[in-house]
Amino acid sequence: MDVVIIGGGAAGLKAASRIRRKDAEANITVVEAGKYVSLGRCGLPYYVGGLVHEVDNLRETTYGAVRDESYFKRLKNIDVLTLTKAVEIDRDRKAVKIVRDGSEDELNYDYLVVATGSRPVRPPIEGIDAEGVVTLTDAEDAEKIIEMWEEGAERAVVIGAGFIGLESAEALKNLDMDVTVIEMMDRVAPAMLDRDIAVLVENHLNEKGVKVLTNTRVEKILTENEKVSAVVANGKEFPADIVIVATGIKPNTELAEKAGLKIGETGAIWVNEFMQTSDENIYAGGDCVETTCLVTKKKIIAPFGDVANKQGRVIGENITGGRLKFPGVYGTAVFKIFEFTVASAGVNEQQAENAGIDYMSVIAPGPDRAHYYPGARYIRMKIIVERGTWRVIGAQAAGMGEVAKRIDVLSTAIQAGMTIDQLSNLDLAYAPPYSPALDPVITAANVAMNKRDGLFEGVTAFELKERISDENIVILDVRSEEEFRSKRIESDKVIHIPILELRERLDELPRDKEIIVVCQLGLRSFEAARILKGAGFENVKLLEGGMAFWF
Amino acid sequence: MDVVIIGGGAAGLKAASRIRRKDAEANITVVEAGKYVSLGRCGLPYYVGGLVHEVDNLRETTYGAVRDESYFKRLKNIDVLTLTKAVEIDRDRKAVKIVRDGSEDELNYDYLVVATGSRPVRPPIEGIDAEGVVTLTDAEDAEKIIEMWEEGAERAVVIGAGFIGLESAEALKNLDMDVTVIEMMDRVAPAMLDRDIAVLVENHLNEKGVKVLTNTRVEKILTENEKVSAVVANGKEFPADIVIVATGIKPNTELAEKAGLKIGETGAIWVNEFMQTSDENIYAGGDCVETTCLVTKKKIIAPFGDVANKQGRVIGENITGGRLKFPGVYGTAVFKIFEFTVASAGVNEQQAENAGIDYMSVIAPGPDRAHYYPGARYIRMKIIVERGTWRVIGAQAAGMGEVAKRIDVLSTAIQAGMTIDQLSNLDLAYAPPYSPALDPVITAANVAMNKRDGLFEGVTAFELKERISDENIVILDVRSEEEFRSKRIESDKVIHIPILELRERLDELPRDKEIIVVCQLGLRSFEAARILKGAGFENVKLLEGGMAFWF
Repeated sequence: MDVVIIGGGAAGLKAASRIRRKDAEANITVVEAGKYVSLGRCGLPYYVGGLVHEVDNLRETTYGAVRDESYFKRLKNIDVLTLTKAVEIDRDRKAVKIVRDGSEDELNYDYLVVATGSRPVRPPIEGIDAEGVVTLTDAEDAEKIIEMWEEGAERAVVIGAGFIGLESAEALKNLDMDVTVIEMMDRVAPAMLDRDIAVLVENHLNEKGVKVLTNTRVEKILTENEKVSAVVANGKEFPADIVIVATGIKPNTELAEKAGLKIGETGAIWVNEFMQTSDENIYAGGDCVETTCLVTKKKIIAPFGDVANKQGRVIGENITGGRLKFPGVYGTAVFKIFEFTVASAGVNEQQAENAGIDYMSVIAPGPDRAHYYPGARYIRMKIIVERGTWRVIGAQAAGMGEVAKRIDVLSTAIQAGMTIDQLSNLDLAYAPPYSPALDPVITAANVAMNKRDGLFEGVTAFELKERISDENIVILDVRSEEEFRSKRIESDKVIHIPILELRERLDELPRDKEIIVVCQLGLRSFEAARILKGAGFENVKLLEGGMAFWF
Repeated sequence: MDVVIIGGGAAGLKAASRIRRKDAEANITVVEAGKYVSLGRCGLPYYVGGLVHEVDNLRETTYGAVRDESYFKRLKNIDVLTLTKAVEIDRDRKAVKIVRDGSEDELNYDYLVVATGSRPVRPPIEGIDAEGVVTLTDAEDAEKIIEMWEEGAERAVVIGAGFIGLESAEALKNLDMDVTVIEMMDRVAPAMLDRDIAVLVENHLNEKGVKVLTNTRVEKILTENEKVSAVVANGKEFPADIVIVATGIKPNTELAEKAGLKIGETGAIWVNEFMQTSDENIYAGGDCVETTCLVTKKKIIAPFGDVANKQGRVIGENITGGRLKFPGVYGTAVFKIFEFTVASAGVNEQQAENAGIDYMSVIAPGPDRAHYYPGARYIRMKIIVERGTWRVIGAQAAGMGEVAKRIDVLSTAIQAGMTIDQLSNLDLAYAPPYSPALDPVITAANVAMNKRDGLFEGVTAFELKERISDENIVILDVRSEEEFRSKRIESDKVIHIPILELRERLDELPRDKEIIVVCQLGLRSFEAARILKGAGFENVKLLEGGMAFWF
């Protein structure tokens, strides 16, 4: 059996390795246009930032072997051809035309795997081709950025605040550069986060000295001697020695398209659940294919390393007689930005709305371990629940605490179709160094049940900001004197009564106004709102997430 | 409505608080025999070890209010009576007889909650009542231990290597004491771990200077002037200034029993899914009740803080007209022991066997994040899968890495009834600081699929040790020169061929013997076993988990 694989990234090489493990005899050839195969590109920002010392670390196995051509040949008897371009797929003759060192050749296949990956989008901005304007896609890009820094580059502008843009911003800041991030949309990580979580991330970036401009469109890139000198956005000039463009990716579909393979509605290569293209002898996986969001059932592109690995395994299995499926993804993602972990799973509010899902969202911050245990940190969490079925369909979280763990649990729960009632009884591993007695995931479910059952009505920080001059509201802050002094809502509508005094001081509150209760995390305000309701106050709401979400 | 709650621990006070949140008018009285209510007992080892500075930290809210009688009265209008003993429940008259300051009184109830908790088992060992022999159950015990240490106690013996025993051992070691742990069973944490994981924990304890003796029965405790001086076990004397007894707990059921409430097969109070006892007006929760293991469907006692909290919430909800269920637990647990996190979910092999489940187990160690990312640490993981349905029914893990996260994900998967095939495609949050491209959970599922599908046969470290003098085996170590030098299986049956040279050196291996392949984590040995199978070697197995599991 002859197998040809176009693309030496995660999907291609995972498929190749799996085929060899199942079939000792197959002839397996991997064709890669670039210099390296099997490079962990997700690690490039950490190489730039100095946390990873050698580019080769990104293509090493856990035991330190570099995954180069010789590694694949000796260990797996797989032929890897680097610096080799696949230029045409001849489906009738089952052959791939390749160009190597300027000369053409042809590889025959019984099965072909298209794993051509993606490339960064370069928006049509004047000056984008200037020296010093780079993406962070390949080892060469990373080396180029480090070289510019070594030559004295001090000011960087990152265009695009998706997670690659933000990771790049941190890397450059770690090199002590002056960094500005410019984002067209109204928030950072707009494909991932709702505004209430995004604003927390923006605050953290600002605290760490990275300037973030949202709602800002880059107009042009200025140059001096063909080298970048500044970025112009919203009419303002931002001096820059380096510009990193991180405005998304585009799947490499040209080869597949030319061969007449079906292209999906997203513009990526269509595949079925077995990862077969419209030609049953041709499989495809990784960044170049589309997949299904299993919450919304819509087709999406999921250009992630973990997805590519899973798809590669499925492809390898199926080419060797298996029948595995890759049904799709749940949009689970995480990134680190300075001391914050930011993660999400399932859909955000925008995506739920676009999919026509009737949903409810709740905010539930809490400590990541027993609050008395050293190192306890807060997690700001939000979950999105489908009304009616009361299943969790989305989750977002940010903070210094163990965020990734909670999102992985919530992602698993979303995939299992768990309701908030089931989540409320989830048996999670409790000990003080790892979680409060009720894990934040469970607390979030309980808060959602309370909201569903009408035990409280919430307002978000955004809603409260909009209503701050409304004469019919009173803001009741129930925190301690100390908390109140350190950071509070600046408004003459604020009445401060520490929670323990509330029952004794109810007569200080007006009965004819809407009372919005505020505390630090939303727990005391829930307690207070219940006290007020019990005492006959009719119009009581609380600030969801408390001051932890105020900005 | 009058509600009386017996017991001021997690279950009782959670129920009380929930009732108040739902019902502003109810009269709620909590009766507690001890001095404190709402003390986070799970934190006591950290108080002893000096990580938590004040006992009061263990009964504070996240915002620093101490949860004492006045707190509950002012904030929640709940009457808490400490140092008050409930001595009788009169179900006909719906009244509880209490004794306080030597005088009797009576509390009437519409609903009663029995949350009487548990007490430590004190095995009938000669000398167990000597001065210096303590349990670590209450604040007073912790204070006593610290006092003894301050007075110069230097040597400690811990009887029982369950997680409370081990946490105590760490606490005392952190005080620079000489610590020996004595366990009757053949391993540490015997209720939780199989031998292969337990042995890793024992090694870590030894590395940290704690002596662990398993298969060792304490015969008596020696005293001098009524104070403990040594523990005698297996005929040997272990000098001791402090002895901590941690041999399990016993539910406090006497009051319920006397009142004629149904006691379950485990000896704890029987309750239905709504947490009602055999008397519909009496609810019970926490350490004093039994619950259901939802994997084996057997009744068990689950004396954990998180369970008590969840049950308390269900009780409070149902007393105020709700209809919530607490269906049971999945045995999920975690503890920290020095730099190791040790966790489990679902059943271990012993429990699966006892429940008559036909299972398969696989071992799958791996790094907790991208191996090139700073701080990456190994997790030693094991999952247990039901044959036929191929659902995950158990998981255990230990190591310095992010173990708790993986067990929480696996626990959620177990609760959702996920198969290894579903687990293999689980969408988890990937970025280099948080996981390898394929999370250890997914790798474990893939290894399990490989084993199910006959792609490899494994032997455990225990099995290999037993067969080490078998003339019909050869051990093939495929690690690097450096790895081989640092730690290896000491046997003349070992042949060392680094994996990259294997294809070229196949003729060095005998074809008439069973070849057991060994590497560091089990990944290269899988690769090697496939190479050997492909080259016609018929009898090939691999050491599951590799040298990471060798002891």
